[in-house]
Amino acid sequence: MPTPASTSVHDNLKRLNITLAPPSPPAAAYVPYVRSGKLVFLSGHIARKGGKPWTGKLGAGVSLDEGSAAARAVAVDLLATLQAAAGGDLSKVVRIVKLMSLVNCTPEFTEQSVVTNGASELLVEVFGSAGAHARSAFGVAQLPFGVCVEIELVAELAAG
Amino acid sequence: MPTPASTSVHDNLKRLNITLAPPSPPAAAYVPYVRSGKLVFLSGHIARKGGKPWTGKLGAGVSLDEGSAAARAVAVDLLATLQAAAGGDLSKVVRIVKLMSLVNCTPEFTEQSVVTNGASELLVEVFGSAGAHARSAFGVAQLPFGVCVEIELVAELAAG
Amino acid sequence: MPTPASTSVHDNLKRLNITLAPPSPPAAAYVPYVRSGKLVFLSGHIARKGGKPWTGKLGAGVSLDEGSAAARAVAVDLLATLQAAAGGDLSKVVRIVKLMSLVNCTPEFTEQSVVTNGASELLVEVFGSAGAHARSAFGVAQLPFGVCVEIELVAELAAG
Repeated sequence: MPTPASTSVHDNLKRLNITLAPPSPPAAAYVPYVRSGKLVFLSGHIARKGGKPWTGKLGAGVSLDEGSAAARAVAVDLLATLQAAAGGDLSKVVRIVKLMSLVNCTPEFTEQSVVTNGASELLVEVFGSAGAHARSAFGVAQLPFGVCVEIELVAELAAG
Repeated sequence: MPTPASTSVHDNLKRLNITLAPPSPPAAAYVPYVRSGKLVFLSGHIARKGGKPWTGKLGAGVSLDEGSAAARAVAVDLLATLQAAAGGDLSKVVRIVKLMSLVNCTPEFTEQSVVTNGASELLVEVFGSAGAHARSAFGVAQLPFGVCVEIELVAELAAG
Repeated sequence: MPTPASTSVHDNLKRLNITLAPPSPPAAAYVPYVRSGKLVFLSGHIARKGGKPWTGKLGAGVSLDEGSAAARAVAVDLLATLQAAAGGDLSKVVRIVKLMSLVNCTPEFTEQSVVTNGASELLVEVFGSAGAHARSAFGVAQLPFGVCVEIELVAELAAG
């Protein structure tokens, strides 16, 4: 049985120099997350840079490094939403369960895994082994607002 | 703890002039839904018009209004399946948890959110706050039968 | 309440002449599966042939038969991971809950369902009615390593 990540989550965020902003309101008729039992399902979060959609396509102008940085930025926003879902306390996250990573790319681009590692590695840096997750990563035709990456997350929270 | 949506779900459907047909059988070796605990997972439902696949691509012939109408039509079909999953009684739906909305579009089309609102808004009209859900929407290369929209749904049902 | 699939799962695998290899380690900063409660979420598994990525696009060089065979091969690899998730005993699988099937294809290819049947049908051959699952299948712009199919799976395991 996994135990809640230790409160060192806060230390990890500090060490990584990450400040979590209040989650941005979704662009449409839905909510940032829904909890059901111990599971919380987060909406797909789009990449943002300086508060604006981080646009472009991998394989057509967006480099591998930039894509990976965008995925990491999405993960930071997911953490902010997850913190809200956990009543303000990320140490109540028992486990990051699953990511679905959508990479906006050309039909030739095949490094969706490398891009997505930007998000996956941050989650492990923050939560340790509780941050290791199942994952699917794939290339999509296009994303809302033309962003380069969108990621959806499922996590398990402590009861109560 | 969310409570089951009130029986006004039936009133809402009546007011919206929506009649739920029996769910159409899936086109292949799978089933329309599987329940596990309180969660029910619905298969991706494709857009249909007059009982036939609602074909076409956003950004190449299918307008934003038509795409949104197609998404709303998918939501009606999802409700029919959800009703079957809930033993015939939609008031046993505690919460719409999550949608995954697949929009068949060109590599330039970026309004997947607007298209998907056709489904999201209907769910809120029918279930009220219990219909507000997490969501991912994105553009795909192509969909089964060439339909313009496909949507998958996860919901929480009352125990028993 | 569904019951665990009978131990004839092993007989079915033998009859189908399927030997499950140890799951291959994922290519990046994630894990092959995460269990939360009774549910186990498997990472997207990419198609492999002779241990190497099974590359190509449906509608552009990969035939329907080959795509379907690739999907079946993915299902075999998913079974190997599922066996590991179930402590080495596939008879602890209560139900295959859901597949998400990503078909690497041209913007014109519309037979994602037929391709995915290669996986769906194997699961029913192995688990019987407990193998019947909800499912989404769609066409994506591109997949990691250029593979033709990637499939993600959710299953329910017996408690304990």
